[in-house]
Amino acid sequence: MLALAGIPLGMRFVVVDPAPDAPVQGLAEHVCADYADARAQEALAACDVVTYEFESVPAAPVRAIAARVPVHPSPNALEVAQDRLLEKSCFRELGVPTAPFRAVDSQADLDAALSEIGLPAVLKTRRLGYDGKGQIVLRARADAEGAFERLGSVPLILEGFVAFERELSSIAVRGLRGEIAFYPLVENHHRDGILRRTLAPAPALKPATQAIAERHVKALLERFDYVGVLALELFEAQGELYANEFAPRVHNSGHFSIEGARTSQFENHLRAVAGLPLGSTELVGPSAMLNCIGTLPKPRDVLAVPDAHFHDYGKEPRPGRKVGHVTVRAASVEVLSERLARLEALIS
Amino acid sequence: MLALAGIPLGMRFVVVDPAPDAPVQGLAEHVCADYADARAQEALAACDVVTYEFESVPAAPVRAIAARVPVHPSPNALEVAQDRLLEKSCFRELGVPTAPFRAVDSQADLDAALSEIGLPAVLKTRRLGYDGKGQIVLRARADAEGAFERLGSVPLILEGFVAFERELSSIAVRGLRGEIAFYPLVENHHRDGILRRTLAPAPALKPATQAIAERHVKALLERFDYVGVLALELFEAQGELYANEFAPRVHNSGHFSIEGARTSQFENHLRAVAGLPLGSTELVGPSAMLNCIGTLPKPRDVLAVPDAHFHDYGKEPRPGRKVGHVTVRAASVEVLSERLARLEALIS
Repeated sequence: MLALAGIPLGMRFVVVDPAPDAPVQGLAEHVCADYADARAQEALAACDVVTYEFESVPAAPVRAIAARVPVHPSPNALEVAQDRLLEKSCFRELGVPTAPFRAVDSQADLDAALSEIGLPAVLKTRRLGYDGKGQIVLRARADAEGAFERLGSVPLILEGFVAFERELSSIAVRGLRGEIAFYPLVENHHRDGILRRTLAPAPALKPATQAIAERHVKALLERFDYVGVLALELFEAQGELYANEFAPRVHNSGHFSIEGARTSQFENHLRAVAGLPLGSTELVGPSAMLNCIGTLPKPRDVLAVPDAHFHDYGKEPRPGRKVGHVTVRAASVEVLSERLARLEALIS
Repeated sequence: MLALAGIPLGMRFVVVDPAPDAPVQGLAEHVCADYADARAQEALAACDVVTYEFESVPAAPVRAIAARVPVHPSPNALEVAQDRLLEKSCFRELGVPTAPFRAVDSQADLDAALSEIGLPAVLKTRRLGYDGKGQIVLRARADAEGAFERLGSVPLILEGFVAFERELSSIAVRGLRGEIAFYPLVENHHRDGILRRTLAPAPALKPATQAIAERHVKALLERFDYVGVLALELFEAQGELYANEFAPRVHNSGHFSIEGARTSQFENHLRAVAGLPLGSTELVGPSAMLNCIGTLPKPRDVLAVPDAHFHDYGKEPRPGRKVGHVTVRAASVEVLSERLARLEALIS
């Protein structure tokens, strides 16, 4: 999606991805190698600017490249986003509210942390968790028995529960000269730990809520002298926003912006990292995004829904894999809901 | 632009273009060969469906392919569009008004035709003229002397002048099951015979004018059992519409639709030829398209204009060559005019 957005801007792409079946679709030169591989490093060093759209890329090779050619967003942001403890601590430093949390490096730590935080709570690996993987929900004291070992005896974090009403995310972009543009907050719906649906804008979004989110995101962007798109996931609870995590990259909850906003998150990310003026983040109208998990619906069925737009990532179908998405727009929220219901019946 | 629209739909492309520097950008497999070449024919015959986006492709190899695999739009439409006399005769048969015209196959024919049609008039080659090439404007009898020879002693057509107020075009799409969708009429501005600017929708567009254009286009689409996007260029004169020519393909005056309409002409063309449901042709709001002729402006300057979108075709700059375009949108026609003025200062 980045390449599709950049080609009309005259940009050309080199993609490093160790997967032989990387969904590059001939849109870019694919260097099929480990990130730290000399061939990958040379190919990237020959570019004008390097970015990443996968937050589990190891920080070391990213830092190695950053010594040779501009890398955006900053590897510092990447390192913090890769470690839930650093991430939550960063939020705390910036005055961004979060659920209570404690570092857990042993079963004893876990028992102590549980006494402080209480139940229910979520025990997560500090690193490499995504889409609900690498975590255990603790509802009773008994759930905690042996939990440290069950998660691999690696550094963990215990997080308290926020009794939230909904999950929102803020997609924002910061340019090379520090200018910032915010998309309106969107509302996200998950199932089995995987994002299924995004509504843009978030229904019944209050200007005050948008303003709070923008203040939090701005603090984060400026903390890292960040360049590019950043997504901040937030829980809304009784008018307050609690940061869950941030992604130093274009984000699934921003995919709606291809059709839903005046400039997509992909184009804005590229504009930012290339030092170009940022594009308008205003919405074109109400829209919604549905993820296709595991398999794709038939394009014929999807495209029969008015103003529905299909995105096939060209990936092999596999259970739990995000293989595409559908965006739908409408002139009103009512009509949008009808179209969404038709699409959900196809996508379930 | 077709490939960029089709890749998200899961489509893959093979492009036959005899030019080694065809602007394929790695988006498609490029077969660099003459259209009639066996290699080109085999590559196309291996596809599910074949289309063209260049109306000077010779009809014979298109017919050869059509005997093996579905080709849309119909080669009949291509052949008629390639010959101004057949084209104008087709309009007449369908009851679509045109300027008066006569076939000219000799200097004597020209003299006779001029007596009937009067001055001023335009003498054009029947075939292979585009962007104002292959034509002479006759303002006085003396201009006609030796004009048949000057245009190469090939079959010509003499056309009377229509004292038109503006040029409009209708972009429409017809699906495999005969369903038709029309974009609102757009207004086109030329300089030196080359399209420079399109305004979408055409300013002060009357519903009655839209209805007349749709009737004409529908007749044309049904005449050829047409599948895909067709553009009809029209002169508006005192509330009447005169057909100038049609293009059996996606058209420069429809480029605005990438950002300006709910579904672009490129996506709708692909949906049609692939037998998928057509997408909404409703406009997102007022927009305008500016062609970049010969050279491109700096992306930095273009993108500094709010809601401006840059399209670099990746072509070598060359005088008179269309190397890119810019689309701009705004919430109102007034703001659009301001943005357009800023862009025109960059693009002239």
